Amino acid sequence: MSAADSKEIFFNTIVYANSMRFSKRTDDLMDSFIMKLIAVSKEEGMISFATGLPDKRLFDTEGIARASADLFEDIDRARDALQYGTIKGITPLRKKIAARCRKEMCVNVSEENIFMINGSQECFDLIGKMFIDRGDGMVTDDPGYLGALQAYSLYGPEFIGVKMNETGPDAGELRKALQRDPKLYYSIPNHQNPSGFSYSSDKRKEVAELISSSNTIMIEDDAYGELGYDGRIGPPVRSMTDNVILTGSYSKIISPGMRMGWMIVPDEMIEMTMKCVESSSLHANTFSQNVMDRYLEQNDLDSYLRNIRKEYKRKSKLMLDLLHDNLPSELEWNTPNGGMFIWLRTPEGTDAMRLYESALKKKLVVMPGRPFHINGGVNTIRLNFATAGDEEIKEGAKRLASAYNGLF
Amino acid sequence: MSAADSKEIFFNTIVYANSMRFSKRTDDLMDSFIMKLIAVSKEEGMISFATGLPDKRLFDTEGIARASADLFEDIDRARDALQYGTIKGITPLRKKIAARCRKEMCVNVSEENIFMINGSQECFDLIGKMFIDRGDGMVTDDPGYLGALQAYSLYGPEFIGVKMNETGPDAGELRKALQRDPKLYYSIPNHQNPSGFSYSSDKRKEVAELISSSNTIMIEDDAYGELGYDGRIGPPVRSMTDNVILTGSYSKIISPGMRMGWMIVPDEMIEMTMKCVESSSLHANTFSQNVMDRYLEQNDLDSYLRNIRKEYKRKSKLMLDLLHDNLPSELEWNTPNGGMFIWLRTPEGTDAMRLYESALKKKLVVMPGRPFHINGGVNTIRLNFATAGDEEIKEGAKRLASAYNGLF
Repeated sequence: MSAADSKEIFFNTIVYANSMRFSKRTDDLMDSFIMKLIAVSKEEGMISFATGLPDKRLFDTEGIARASADLFEDIDRARDALQYGTIKGITPLRKKIAARCRKEMCVNVSEENIFMINGSQECFDLIGKMFIDRGDGMVTDDPGYLGALQAYSLYGPEFIGVKMNETGPDAGELRKALQRDPKLYYSIPNHQNPSGFSYSSDKRKEVAELISSSNTIMIEDDAYGELGYDGRIGPPVRSMTDNVILTGSYSKIISPGMRMGWMIVPDEMIEMTMKCVESSSLHANTFSQNVMDRYLEQNDLDSYLRNIRKEYKRKSKLMLDLLHDNLPSELEWNTPNGGMFIWLRTPEGTDAMRLYESALKKKLVVMPGRPFHINGGVNTIRLNFATAGDEEIKEGAKRLASAYNGLF
Repeated sequence: MSAADSKEIFFNTIVYANSMRFSKRTDDLMDSFIMKLIAVSKEEGMISFATGLPDKRLFDTEGIARASADLFEDIDRARDALQYGTIKGITPLRKKIAARCRKEMCVNVSEENIFMINGSQECFDLIGKMFIDRGDGMVTDDPGYLGALQAYSLYGPEFIGVKMNETGPDAGELRKALQRDPKLYYSIPNHQNPSGFSYSSDKRKEVAELISSSNTIMIEDDAYGELGYDGRIGPPVRSMTDNVILTGSYSKIISPGMRMGWMIVPDEMIEMTMKCVESSSLHANTFSQNVMDRYLEQNDLDSYLRNIRKEYKRKSKLMLDLLHDNLPSELEWNTPNGGMFIWLRTPEGTDAMRLYESALKKKLVVMPGRPFHINGGVNTIRLNFATAGDEEIKEGAKRLASAYNGLF
């Protein structure tokens, strides 16, 4: 085939600018800002406290290189890793996740209920696809994790926000929301994104009780559960009641680029999940799964995590001290006990979007809290202390103080 | 947290067996049999001509090991490969795909229109999500590729089958179908799955003309385009008209386990595709993308492909000769000029599902053709000669002949 052949048979095509006949569901699709902020953050001289990126200096590149090299040392293993796989994912990795659930989380589950998925985001898309008809009720943390809300939004749920407090969701609001018989309840009990808040022990029991006596399935997002600075802070709701889909991920602790998440589903969901995973992606990346499995064979996850937790604890303290030293006392924030985020509040009645804009002019990107909210949240900002290096954190805190100065 | 803590707060949960409130769209979800047949094929002593798996002996495990090792030699590159990426995927890889499109396919496209996706299957899910409202018309090859039809089926299109002949789709049927103003037309012009048929040169022009004068967007699936035994057999429809989404994949030529597909979309679709990819998966696996990019840097794709093409040509001839020597003359089949499949037809009026069942008893898995069809196809069987080794092909052909003997 030559270029000339192709030219010869070229037709002048009508270009349907802005006339694409997209589906109605795309009208409901929320904007998430996440990827846009990642793009802005990459601009020259910009410091970012905005995204949910882990600290790439903590990636164990040598360990993953070894795991990958080890995979290729056995040609049969390598061939299988590069071939099509099975819907649920590779058994050794699912067994490791099941074992950790039993040991660390008191969740008595076998690998039969575990599906490896190309990142948590795909879990949320799958769950939306499987459950939500347009107009169905869906309860979420308010504020809630925007990426997940965006995935669900495509399927047109009616979101019901339940206020997320420093000790977990407001139980009265949750009870009232569940009385409306929503299909799903999405929540992050540990070191929540965006707020950094976690459920108290009492709240875990209370939520489990409410969920177990409802028809609603809880989606318990455990993306940050392994990042408690002094270890796990409490058992998941899934350890106390069965009608929960528990999602997890290696993104925040090992590597987000490898897109390795999983979902642990109730028995009654296994068959439908098989069909939906097959239809949406056939199965998760078998190469990534195998490299991850080798990595976990060769390394002790607990000692690995000790270092990650220690480092995030140190960085959170660094930022907290800087906020304390540089920001006026009318600003409020929490002291997280895990995860990557601090939740900043400007005085009641002020619009934190103005702080976002002012900071941007000083080459600092922060994430406005408003888009995470179903209701309110105008005076909130999410700060990520994980992504930036120490010097950037110091310089960024100065820029934040200077951006705030005289704003309101 | 101890196991006792957890026990203490355990609630007896109502188990909602068979009472999951799945979305209505799941009622439309087709069964694809693909993954089930892969599972059956793995049983002890079984020979499989059933699936779409490439020959894993042809995977360049050493080359991919080198590419992976090379990636980790530069710590900054390694960290970026393990970190979150951007929605469209990494630029160097998208540039390579764009360059190949221009050089080999006469498709004048830049990387701006290319999205890296976790395998073609996710492309089909994304396209269904973006375009199909329940009841929308969607034209497809008949027979058509079942995996894609399954992905679309979840969004409830009304499928309109256009008969796929040895030289491409029946033009009269396609013209008639397009008069119904369907939103989408899905087709595989090169070495089609399941039939192995390809569009003739005239048919490419004819289809491009029909599409360019319609409101319908063609999804041109080029999964097998690089597997023409003597090189590419013709330019894609996308080289002749713009309202085409062209999908491609490294699955059939390099590695399906790395889940590396892509879609090339018209300008007017870029923004919506950004939002939908973000919402469904954030972005494709950056680790796989980087390993693939290193691989393509270090190896000449054309000389690599020469070997793959030669080997599949040899295996197709091996199977064709065996069919000729072993099967009675009332059976018909085609001689493919690329790809992985032979399309077998039992006599008119017979049910090839009986041959599938009879073969299974002899420990040979073949793929019945009926599920690929919108209409008819009862007397068809798809045979894959790529997956099995030579000895298995020889033994499998004997089992097929013996399974057929006296059946009708």
